[in-house]
Amino acid sequence: MAERLIYLPLGGAGEIGMNAYVYGYGEPGRERLILVDLGVTFGDMDSAPGIDLIMADMGWLEDNRDRLEAIFITHGHEDHVGALGLLYGRLKVPVYARRFTGTLARMKMEEAGQPTDKLRIVAPRPEIVHAGPFDVQFVPLSHSIPESSALIIDTPAGRVVHTGDFKLDGTPVVGEPFDPMLFHEIANERPVKVLACDSTNVFSPNPGRSEAMLANPLLDFVVAQKQMVVATTFASNVARLKTLADAGIAAGRQICLLGRAMRKMVTAAIETGVLTSFPDVIGPEQAAELPRNKVMLIVTGSQGERRAASMQLSMGRYLGLELKEGDSFLFSSRTIPGNERPVIRIMNNLSRRGVDVFDADDGFYHVSGHANRPDLQAVHDLLKPEILIPMHGEHMHLREHAALGQAKGIATAIATNGTMLDLTGATPRVVDDVATGRLYLDGTVLIGAMDGIVRDRIRMALNGHATVSIIIDENDEPLPDAWVETMGLAQQGRAGVPLARHLESELAEFLDRVDARTVMDDKKLDEAIRKITRNVAMEEIGKKPEVKVIISRLAAD
Amino acid sequence: MAERLIYLPLGGAGEIGMNAYVYGYGEPGRERLILVDLGVTFGDMDSAPGIDLIMADMGWLEDNRDRLEAIFITHGHEDHVGALGLLYGRLKVPVYARRFTGTLARMKMEEAGQPTDKLRIVAPRPEIVHAGPFDVQFVPLSHSIPESSALIIDTPAGRVVHTGDFKLDGTPVVGEPFDPMLFHEIANERPVKVLACDSTNVFSPNPGRSEAMLANPLLDFVVAQKQMVVATTFASNVARLKTLADAGIAAGRQICLLGRAMRKMVTAAIETGVLTSFPDVIGPEQAAELPRNKVMLIVTGSQGERRAASMQLSMGRYLGLELKEGDSFLFSSRTIPGNERPVIRIMNNLSRRGVDVFDADDGFYHVSGHANRPDLQAVHDLLKPEILIPMHGEHMHLREHAALGQAKGIATAIATNGTMLDLTGATPRVVDDVATGRLYLDGTVLIGAMDGIVRDRIRMALNGHATVSIIIDENDEPLPDAWVETMGLAQQGRAGVPLARHLESELAEFLDRVDARTVMDDKKLDEAIRKITRNVAMEEIGKKPEVKVIISRLAAD
Repeated sequence: MAERLIYLPLGGAGEIGMNAYVYGYGEPGRERLILVDLGVTFGDMDSAPGIDLIMADMGWLEDNRDRLEAIFITHGHEDHVGALGLLYGRLKVPVYARRFTGTLARMKMEEAGQPTDKLRIVAPRPEIVHAGPFDVQFVPLSHSIPESSALIIDTPAGRVVHTGDFKLDGTPVVGEPFDPMLFHEIANERPVKVLACDSTNVFSPNPGRSEAMLANPLLDFVVAQKQMVVATTFASNVARLKTLADAGIAAGRQICLLGRAMRKMVTAAIETGVLTSFPDVIGPEQAAELPRNKVMLIVTGSQGERRAASMQLSMGRYLGLELKEGDSFLFSSRTIPGNERPVIRIMNNLSRRGVDVFDADDGFYHVSGHANRPDLQAVHDLLKPEILIPMHGEHMHLREHAALGQAKGIATAIATNGTMLDLTGATPRVVDDVATGRLYLDGTVLIGAMDGIVRDRIRMALNGHATVSIIIDENDEPLPDAWVETMGLAQQGRAGVPLARHLESELAEFLDRVDARTVMDDKKLDEAIRKITRNVAMEEIGKKPEVKVIISRLAAD
Repeated sequence: MAERLIYLPLGGAGEIGMNAYVYGYGEPGRERLILVDLGVTFGDMDSAPGIDLIMADMGWLEDNRDRLEAIFITHGHEDHVGALGLLYGRLKVPVYARRFTGTLARMKMEEAGQPTDKLRIVAPRPEIVHAGPFDVQFVPLSHSIPESSALIIDTPAGRVVHTGDFKLDGTPVVGEPFDPMLFHEIANERPVKVLACDSTNVFSPNPGRSEAMLANPLLDFVVAQKQMVVATTFASNVARLKTLADAGIAAGRQICLLGRAMRKMVTAAIETGVLTSFPDVIGPEQAAELPRNKVMLIVTGSQGERRAASMQLSMGRYLGLELKEGDSFLFSSRTIPGNERPVIRIMNNLSRRGVDVFDADDGFYHVSGHANRPDLQAVHDLLKPEILIPMHGEHMHLREHAALGQAKGIATAIATNGTMLDLTGATPRVVDDVATGRLYLDGTVLIGAMDGIVRDRIRMALNGHATVSIIIDENDEPLPDAWVETMGLAQQGRAGVPLARHLESELAEFLDRVDARTVMDDKKLDEAIRKITRNVAMEEIGKKPEVKVIISRLAAD
């Protein structure tokens, strides 16, 4: 059979987060495979209460592990590398990344107790990684973390450019600028058959702005503040940390970094050489002793994370520091949709303390890390791909990005997680629909999103919980009493007595008249008790709780 | 003791939603009271899973019910009238509202099975309601629902103007325009001692725009669409419904309203005369039979409500209607912070169906119902109050609004729920801090927010649940087996056996060696079992579940 080039997103296509993209080349069903990125996303109470991390289910790839050549990590953001440690043990193939990204990848693998002997640090183009039928090069470009890279994936069917996350920033402050000549050269060297391209900001109509444009506004901002200044941004945005810190120093303040992730990121950036200078920082104890107008805190928690420094500082004394009337707090960040509530909570907490809050809504104090609509068009023009595959976006982003390509006459397809495309011909063709899913890190265990565990938690949260315990004696007669324990249910309902007592008396009545056949049948008995419990609760308090029935059968001595 | 004028917000100050403001006049502690508005807000999974409605706890007012003269409802939005039915039975005083608002208030009371004999319909100024020491007039102004009114509350200590919710709209399409001369007259007639003022949009820097400005853009929009058009907005925004429907008719389409709340609102508006004309509408069956380009649906669910028409239509066939490639869906609304996730979910659902989605981000298809910063300043200038009390806002809104007043030399105070202000003097003075709280409607029962019920639900959602049942026999010896049922927990952990079985065997071991004193003591035994269960689960799956222990003691025959 003719060999073919396939593309199969397992995560990140039709959603923003947990990126995992498979490419394959070979005879159908026997393609050699590579995986690009292995990220996580974060749970929320609405859809995944109690879940620590969410990642794409690698089931398909595990089933085809003998065909998997390697994993490539484009950059160090959690949604691209965060699942590497947790899932590496299921894949166990070489992992390729550049130096800084590789350092972060190594941490992930070590934290998860995985061996790192197959982690390979790669120099950028022209270095080539040979992985089965694929020749892969890392191409520097700009993003909101240093060392983000596109991948050139050369295959017998043609050249693929997989952008990873990027923006067109010629002056990114830290890390390599976007170099249009380099991309021009790449397209000239060999025509680009496929461009798999970041779609995050396709709805942003204006050209993106450079990180360097923030230096002056941020300096002006810090200079204008009278008391303590606090700024928050993403820990991994090393360029922003530097711009903020430089502004603080220039305004005569000492810099204190709060948040483990932030200090770790700066250390990694310095050690790997991506950050060549960063002001000396002081600890929180020192910061607490300096005059307030001589200190600038740069802190984690721009998205309202519950345990991060921003939230902690908004609630009271934290590491010996306490915000006061006249202090200033800057969100040098954009609130990711869905995180509005906790961010607003921080703002109101700060307002109560008399702290002046500034956000980046007017655009002076934050720029995005993703290419906007005209920037995407510029990249289409630079690379002139035969086929455009929009990735890294929700469905509406992919659809809009595809329309953008179509308008220019580029063949495109919207492929969401599980959609396998054959990219060998002039237009992409859907050739398979692979079962995909999500894994949840829950405590220390990886569970399946569809296992029913999270569904049960949501049900308990919405409906409350009742346990009923009954005992069947040695003669197969139910003891007259039922025990009921409730949790998350109103204590008292219509009958004017405690709900649990009311349920017990209704169940006692049932046990008194229940027929012998039902008593002998665990399943029937369970169902009958559950039904009574739910119906009585509905009548009493207007809710049908989740019910667990425990039937204990006493053995004859 | 000298008489005084007091202000006490019980809800709506320091939050947006569940408005409930008390004014009092008389000797300290013996003031006669009135309540302005009695609203609800909606729960979310993060803070109130399973809760249907949230309202301010009226405990303080119930304790002082003999001093309460009346309730005044400024307008018919849920956050101003939604709790009237549920809490009326605790207050039982006359309720005053204008005609349309009163119709909505009556529905609330009837739904809750309350008598409506004390509901009084009031004409706008110059009609005066005498309520103890208060003379109250309803003053028409513009908002996103017809008949919104400010209250003039005349007291022996001076005139209070309580704005309710408003914007400065001279052409509101439906309902009365904002009339600056009327407010000028009010201030000239008697100096305004206190202005209690809506703060919602204090951070919006530009003057608000009129509802009438939407007519042309909406008509242009509908005309430009090729297939079915769907538009969503708040059901209570009768003016918007009319503008949308008129645009549809002018574009040669028939109008179909989907959503019970929307049809109810239009009916009430017509019956009470606030809406004098509305196009004929067709039912969903008829709409399904017409050519797609001859139909416009106006539907509920602009905030992503799970059961509303927008979500239903995005997910598939609904009432015989199904959206398709080429149809258009317009959000003629703003997403309230916190509702982004479900709204984005609708957008992606629609994208998957090939429906083009339009939102109001560029301002063409929606205007706010609240006064923006310059509008607030204009009202301060018109009324020239001695004291400004910012209300209807989160803490940061109140603080910003207070700063606005201070900059003009107006005395202000930030009073959040429970803060009692004495407004008798030239500046507001905090005189008491009253215990406030929230009530939750949970099924058919009102529970206290701090009762622990919701806390337990959140814990079950985050941590899962385990029930342990053990039996102590007639000789006070534990039976050797423990029964464990889990819900919302991983099925298997580190030990490689089912978690419940592993817990049972660990508990059996404990029961084997437990001392007689512990067995005799329910509390000790419960604690010991709970501790083992939590610790074993932690070791196995990295989570400490909520544990309920049921100890059954067999009586000697």
